[in-house]
Amino acid sequence: MLGIREISNFLPQEKLYNYDFKDKFSIDEIFIKEKIGFEYLTRKQKDEKASNLCIKAYEKLVDVDKNAIDCIVLITQNGDFKIPHTSAILQDKLNLTKNCACFDINLACSGYIYGLCAILGFMQINGFKQGLLFTCDPYSQIINDDDKNTALLFGDAASVSLINTEPIYVPKAFKFGTDGAGFEAIFCQKDRLSMDGRAVFNFAMQIISSHIEQFLQENSLSKEQIDKFLFHQGSKFIINSLAKRLELDESKMPFLAKNYGNTISSSIPLMLQSQLLEQNAKRILACGFGGGLSWGSCILEKNQKEQK
Amino acid sequence: MLGIREISNFLPQEKLYNYDFKDKFSIDEIFIKEKIGFEYLTRKQKDEKASNLCIKAYEKLVDVDKNAIDCIVLITQNGDFKIPHTSAILQDKLNLTKNCACFDINLACSGYIYGLCAILGFMQINGFKQGLLFTCDPYSQIINDDDKNTALLFGDAASVSLINTEPIYVPKAFKFGTDGAGFEAIFCQKDRLSMDGRAVFNFAMQIISSHIEQFLQENSLSKEQIDKFLFHQGSKFIINSLAKRLELDESKMPFLAKNYGNTISSSIPLMLQSQLLEQNAKRILACGFGGGLSWGSCILEKNQKEQK
Repeated sequence: MLGIREISNFLPQEKLYNYDFKDKFSIDEIFIKEKIGFEYLTRKQKDEKASNLCIKAYEKLVDVDKNAIDCIVLITQNGDFKIPHTSAILQDKLNLTKNCACFDINLACSGYIYGLCAILGFMQINGFKQGLLFTCDPYSQIINDDDKNTALLFGDAASVSLINTEPIYVPKAFKFGTDGAGFEAIFCQKDRLSMDGRAVFNFAMQIISSHIEQFLQENSLSKEQIDKFLFHQGSKFIINSLAKRLELDESKMPFLAKNYGNTISSSIPLMLQSQLLEQNAKRILACGFGGGLSWGSCILEKNQKEQK
Repeated sequence: MLGIREISNFLPQEKLYNYDFKDKFSIDEIFIKEKIGFEYLTRKQKDEKASNLCIKAYEKLVDVDKNAIDCIVLITQNGDFKIPHTSAILQDKLNLTKNCACFDINLACSGYIYGLCAILGFMQINGFKQGLLFTCDPYSQIINDDDKNTALLFGDAASVSLINTEPIYVPKAFKFGTDGAGFEAIFCQKDRLSMDGRAVFNFAMQIISSHIEQFLQENSLSKEQIDKFLFHQGSKFIINSLAKRLELDESKMPFLAKNYGNTISSSIPLMLQSQLLEQNAKRILACGFGGGLSWGSCILEKNQKEQK
């Protein structure tokens, strides 16, 4: 049985402080504190690439057998180069065997859920025992610091999830969706991100809440049977509005990105990492949604046999 | 049981004729005919994007149930935009349901084999019955027409493979590899491809031939038990040299890209399509290799139950 054994992350020490931009963008404290919710945004060094951040996350893994990694999947839209895929560069930099299968998936905020399903399926078919699912999308590379719609939102981060046969949490069910008609809501053509915050918010309200209700129903689960709802941290206002609509309180569906920002595909593994350490939640529903438009959810259950 | 039911493709009618460049690059007919082997290179219209080519391939599918497509995986390094993923745009343009799971994989010439394994695994986990695996990598967008190392090699193409529960060919085994130390052999940073042909040739000779021998051995198969070896069409010289090293004759390991060029991840499905129509081969070994460096192979067996 394959599942998530361990997660580690890297968050750069350097941060922007959003209160410093109150005058520049004519915004008040309430907007930062309650609407976007991000007080700090992590920033990588200018010359650091996605693979550098991934390596720093990887170095913190404890349970990995570094000599027998069968595959790497990296979720990114801002890899080291256009060609080749950054996971190949990781294979070399991490000194992994040439038998390692590597590929990158181009996905934004739903990327971790898609990637988790993709790596599990890939490993199952090949009988692989140990794989690494990386997320790293340094949006600081594509943000215009003068664009109020994007400058206050995104933080740089990387995460790596160790997938093996001694998991702490096991994925029990997935559900996915796509609405390409909304592709312009989060858009980047020539290394410059543009974003329509209202369209993204409407999408979250209209599609994600009913997606969650359907997903629970399809798996004969009530909200009470889920201990944690870990949702992509698009903004505090999105999380709180979704929680209200789903009638969940803050402790069950937390906003946790105040000190680092929206880290795209890393936002869910950053939260899951704490759950892996605490192991209090018996059942978790993780949901990613954003650019594409794209969304995906997963129910994770604690593996009773494994205790760290 | 999931496998490949049908493949269709799109090759642009417009072509470059490599003999026209004999003087420009000081090359002779032998070089074109015997070394690279590409006499024509297909070229999309300048304003056409990857999704446009994919749609033209999709429109030729016969057996697809257009109302029940569970997922799309697109292999590309030259999608429509940097963000979002092009498979989301396809979901919209093909009028597919919003329940369609979509993701892009960033991989070059090994992409079809990786993508085939990834979509099969993804479909199995989710109980999906019908998926589409697209390939489309219009390298004409990133080629400098004055660069002899790249200008004479690449053709634009798209393919789509219908993966369903009534397959004609079923993947029986996969084997993958990566050598990121050679990432600069086929490289693109700012929309301009560079390539070290000698490094790629050496890679094919040193790694791919022993990879194939090992793969056959691991699956207790002799070369005689494989009816067709469909290898990525990097150049006629690479194919012929590999065939010689593997002691295979031309009819068993053909070079078929004379009239369109190296189409990256589309080169294998373009050849497989003929096999699906003819259905003479009982067992096929398909192998993709190139940028990354990355390689992957798959053994496909004819499904005795299904006849078109």
